[in-house]
Amino acid sequence: MLRSMATTRAPLLLILLLAATTATFAADPDPLQDICVADLNNTIKVNGFVCKPAAAVTAEDFAFKGLAKPAVINNTLGAVVTVANVEKIPGLNTLGVSLARIDYAPGGLNPPHTHPRATETVFVLYGALDVGFITTANKLITKTIDVGEIFVFPRGLIHFQKNNGDKPAAVISGFNSQLPGTQPIAAALFSASPPVPDNVLSKAFQISTKEVEKIKSRFAPKS
Amino acid sequence: MLRSMATTRAPLLLILLLAATTATFAADPDPLQDICVADLNNTIKVNGFVCKPAAAVTAEDFAFKGLAKPAVINNTLGAVVTVANVEKIPGLNTLGVSLARIDYAPGGLNPPHTHPRATETVFVLYGALDVGFITTANKLITKTIDVGEIFVFPRGLIHFQKNNGDKPAAVISGFNSQLPGTQPIAAALFSASPPVPDNVLSKAFQISTKEVEKIKSRFAPKS
Amino acid sequence: MLRSMATTRAPLLLILLLAATTATFAADPDPLQDICVADLNNTIKVNGFVCKPAAAVTAEDFAFKGLAKPAVINNTLGAVVTVANVEKIPGLNTLGVSLARIDYAPGGLNPPHTHPRATETVFVLYGALDVGFITTANKLITKTIDVGEIFVFPRGLIHFQKNNGDKPAAVISGFNSQLPGTQPIAAALFSASPPVPDNVLSKAFQISTKEVEKIKSRFAPKS
Amino acid sequence: MLRSMATTRAPLLLILLLAATTATFAADPDPLQDICVADLNNTIKVNGFVCKPAAAVTAEDFAFKGLAKPAVINNTLGAVVTVANVEKIPGLNTLGVSLARIDYAPGGLNPPHTHPRATETVFVLYGALDVGFITTANKLITKTIDVGEIFVFPRGLIHFQKNNGDKPAAVISGFNSQLPGTQPIAAALFSASPPVPDNVLSKAFQISTKEVEKIKSRFAPKS
Amino acid sequence: MLRSMATTRAPLLLILLLAATTATFAADPDPLQDICVADLNNTIKVNGFVCKPAAAVTAEDFAFKGLAKPAVINNTLGAVVTVANVEKIPGLNTLGVSLARIDYAPGGLNPPHTHPRATETVFVLYGALDVGFITTANKLITKTIDVGEIFVFPRGLIHFQKNNGDKPAAVISGFNSQLPGTQPIAAALFSASPPVPDNVLSKAFQISTKEVEKIKSRFAPKS
Amino acid sequence: MLRSMATTRAPLLLILLLAATTATFAADPDPLQDICVADLNNTIKVNGFVCKPAAAVTAEDFAFKGLAKPAVINNTLGAVVTVANVEKIPGLNTLGVSLARIDYAPGGLNPPHTHPRATETVFVLYGALDVGFITTANKLITKTIDVGEIFVFPRGLIHFQKNNGDKPAAVISGFNSQLPGTQPIAAALFSASPPVPDNVLSKAFQISTKEVEKIKSRFAPKS
Repeated sequence: MLRSMATTRAPLLLILLLAATTATFAADPDPLQDICVADLNNTIKVNGFVCKPAAAVTAEDFAFKGLAKPAVINNTLGAVVTVANVEKIPGLNTLGVSLARIDYAPGGLNPPHTHPRATETVFVLYGALDVGFITTANKLITKTIDVGEIFVFPRGLIHFQKNNGDKPAAVISGFNSQLPGTQPIAAALFSASPPVPDNVLSKAFQISTKEVEKIKSRFAPKS
Repeated sequence: MLRSMATTRAPLLLILLLAATTATFAADPDPLQDICVADLNNTIKVNGFVCKPAAAVTAEDFAFKGLAKPAVINNTLGAVVTVANVEKIPGLNTLGVSLARIDYAPGGLNPPHTHPRATETVFVLYGALDVGFITTANKLITKTIDVGEIFVFPRGLIHFQKNNGDKPAAVISGFNSQLPGTQPIAAALFSASPPVPDNVLSKAFQISTKEVEKIKSRFAPKS
Repeated sequence: MLRSMATTRAPLLLILLLAATTATFAADPDPLQDICVADLNNTIKVNGFVCKPAAAVTAEDFAFKGLAKPAVINNTLGAVVTVANVEKIPGLNTLGVSLARIDYAPGGLNPPHTHPRATETVFVLYGALDVGFITTANKLITKTIDVGEIFVFPRGLIHFQKNNGDKPAAVISGFNSQLPGTQPIAAALFSASPPVPDNVLSKAFQISTKEVEKIKSRFAPKS
Repeated sequence: MLRSMATTRAPLLLILLLAATTATFAADPDPLQDICVADLNNTIKVNGFVCKPAAAVTAEDFAFKGLAKPAVINNTLGAVVTVANVEKIPGLNTLGVSLARIDYAPGGLNPPHTHPRATETVFVLYGALDVGFITTANKLITKTIDVGEIFVFPRGLIHFQKNNGDKPAAVISGFNSQLPGTQPIAAALFSASPPVPDNVLSKAFQISTKEVEKIKSRFAPKS
Repeated sequence: MLRSMATTRAPLLLILLLAATTATFAADPDPLQDICVADLNNTIKVNGFVCKPAAAVTAEDFAFKGLAKPAVINNTLGAVVTVANVEKIPGLNTLGVSLARIDYAPGGLNPPHTHPRATETVFVLYGALDVGFITTANKLITKTIDVGEIFVFPRGLIHFQKNNGDKPAAVISGFNSQLPGTQPIAAALFSASPPVPDNVLSKAFQISTKEVEKIKSRFAPKS
Repeated sequence: MLRSMATTRAPLLLILLLAATTATFAADPDPLQDICVADLNNTIKVNGFVCKPAAAVTAEDFAFKGLAKPAVINNTLGAVVTVANVEKIPGLNTLGVSLARIDYAPGGLNPPHTHPRATETVFVLYGALDVGFITTANKLITKTIDVGEIFVFPRGLIHFQKNNGDKPAAVISGFNSQLPGTQPIAAALFSASPPVPDNVLSKAFQISTKEVEKIKSRFAPKS
């Protein structure tokens, strides 16, 4: 992600879609000290983050309130991911774990995506979800999970959650990386910047380049 | 834990106390295939677990309902930990992550303990908690966290949560190990089997051996 | 992949497509002995493979001829991946590395895919390729690479290679996993078994369910 | 440990107690170059340490004389730990190993403690020791070891060594971390700064808050 | 390697010999972000490299043309290694993989050496080679490999390749480290700076110190 | 090492030489449970060892007396290595650490060797030693260390210790692997079975094949 997600100028829909899918995770390297609180604004960049001076560390570095309330869902997909990774909780740096909250409107979809660096485990706060992941042998493992239930999405594999009920739903996710990363597949392929060539998408999905262009237009920023 | 926790004959209180603290975690080795669902009953034991045959794998291997409801709290401490680790969700094997739920009565305490193999991140489902961890420089990092708030307990460090309110509380915990392990400090020192010698505890805590015996008696099984 | 890819009954096209994309990779755990040659037929399954008896190990366990010749390209995509991972070279077990060869007809595409467990580095044997990967910030990093040139695809990120020339092309790939796994995105989403629900794909790609069905039909086995 | 242990103002006894227990360890990340000698005074802090310039590296960076002589034992516990970790041997940085020496007066105790990041293996230089560790199933594994004998304390588990003989004893310890960290349990719980609340300790140890205060007073600095 | 190889003044032969053997590799730590392109000129040194600013990253950081052509072979050994590691492809930083090319004149030898941090897998571009590695049980695993064939050299073990044919040969090597390092055994022992003492080499190889001096002289710079 | 060192029929000298150098080490994968005591006689072989049943575990599995006394030194080199790795202390399995003892006669040499999987740190029990390691940039880092002094040999690099004094010497070594492995360079190259071809050694060391044969003969078993 070129370490900062700030520079891409993306349409509102895409921002929301990315926001809805930016939470992910993996088996990070082991820590070499008790704590190394991320100095998020330091211009020196390393694998992870450099540490704040010990004297500047407070309990606030290990706390976060951002998952307390349901997100406002105002995108086409009907789902929003709110992350609680090292970029939000600097104390997580070097510690190999993070959380996220996903809110779903009725009918809402957290669309097929991967986390390049983590396994995800969701716990349903309320509502019910149809969830699934696809193995590299092209087998779909799928299930409907209810409030209080847990489901696992193995590292790096495509997965999704859909709220097919008529009430809102929400989950808390746990990941084994301080910054798992999320790659929302459709948005990545049809709205990357610069764009993925039409002939690649046409051949991959076995559709015409005109159909490719139509899909791309739907991911484009609304003027 | 000698891989199985089944063989220790412990008093009810201790069982509850252990139950209340058996959830923990760490930076596990990377997976070498998509999934390797634990064959929990296999007599062959390895680092982690051997895998079930592929044909026997189902979506149920990745799901768990055991955290859906608050645990019944009937121990002295007023807190119960319910784990959702690889022993409960065999699909977690090789994937490096697990969850747990902790329920606290008013005044309840998840007593000082460590997780030898994981960092823990808690999300407050309801209620409020006074939480803290101690660094190896003997500094206590402490804070009161409210519903929806997150707090981090770094790998291997002593930490605790206490419900000082007058209402029940509960959290969901995420860990970066499939089986973090929990070491409840007071119970480990004062009720291990065989017992830790009195002269070790007397000198360590700077109390008389008579006082050591008194504490041990409180951790002993009620007849 | 449920450890074995053998059981899925897939259409010829899909088999070829999977064959063309089964090569991938990651940061495997460290070895604990010089060598642990995979006993591929052992019914005991672990993270990776159990080792053959030392007396049965020969130099052949470390050698492989399967990448010597260009693959016959007879699929729609015009590209075939031939893998040289631990399933083909049992001596790679525990050693954290593997190779693959990809052959491209003129116009051929190794379609957008991910390797859940490895970074890939390609070396162009002959021909020229348009290659690219997409970051989780939705940025496409793309380039045309010529014979003898190298390009890197970071772990877990979507990437592709296309031969836009009028001559065949081929690459050798190096990965940092003994079994990286490959997830071909379009095939995974539109031909998984059981199928990914139409309403998930419709919403994700912002196309009608009729259009979803049409794409699915193109990935279906030819009778 | 907030990376530096220097800033805590602790009573003499505590300093000695910490000194006696600051040696510990774990499975550190792999090195990415031959050597990366720690630049201990650099103000930039990372996971581990930044490297000194190559031109400044000498053989002295890999050597240490601090374990040559028995430590002067002048604390209540009758045991002193002298560490030889990356803070003393900068050449250990990124190399995942360290040593320590522990000296015990007759009757001396290295009190129950954990190393959050390493397994420890002791070799008895002279004397004899009663040693033990406690598993997370609350089982004590204990043994008397004599001069020249080795014993293992698994990563993260509570352990102790006591010299029940009438002669001094000493060990050399090996750890699999450049900076394992040590958490002396009684001192952490009863003399952390700020203090662990009395009601936490009272409930955890099932003693009165008055008894808690009495123990705390014994860990307090002598004026 | 003191991180920089620049400062050693070595004879031409040695430079060539080192050049011919500087390519190697291992199981690096996991990445904590999509990419962290090495800022090779930054004066701050860490395990691996600090990252370039995101805005400065281009596709060129992931590409390399240096293996496209056979190296000019003008040394005594008749073999030259050309590396494509993180020092040449900064985008490899944190990604745990690299490549190399080795060219052999007829009769050329890539002499016995080790890679302290990686397993190597070679693919024969043209020609044929006699290759082998030695286990720590002193067993030689050896084979003649032909064009298109692959062979594996396990991490850290002594290995070599020799072109016993009358035509040039070349291989592409894949390694599981961004900077595996190479230790050419004869050159290391007989031309290190300062020199390894004669009595060490005499006793190790069971030859006279005069014979040691003779070998050393052959590795010395030609004036 | 083909996992077992038992099958090689080697001359007495070589056995002693190997015995003298079999101790080494590295950054092993993390444990997934408290303990997994190696079942050394189990016919199932994995990365490391399968675990003994929990009921069979005793304190003896974590203890070892084999380093208590100086080894009898009756080989040409004048040095003997005695290992305390997982093959001797089954409790070390999955725990990533081991020890060794090396005894040196006056003039004795632990000849140049590598440990493919670990860094080594030596503590001098008595005597004095000239020690050194060589970086991949061919720089020798060397020093004389005295009783009580520590020195570090970074992972995978060639190193040696020589007792140039007139009294015996001994060290305790700590390694960050349960089974580091040792590759004694001269013995590996000149007495491997089957033998390394003369033309490889002749060219590598720039000596005649006759000289190669002479050295080989000195490593051959005495009849």
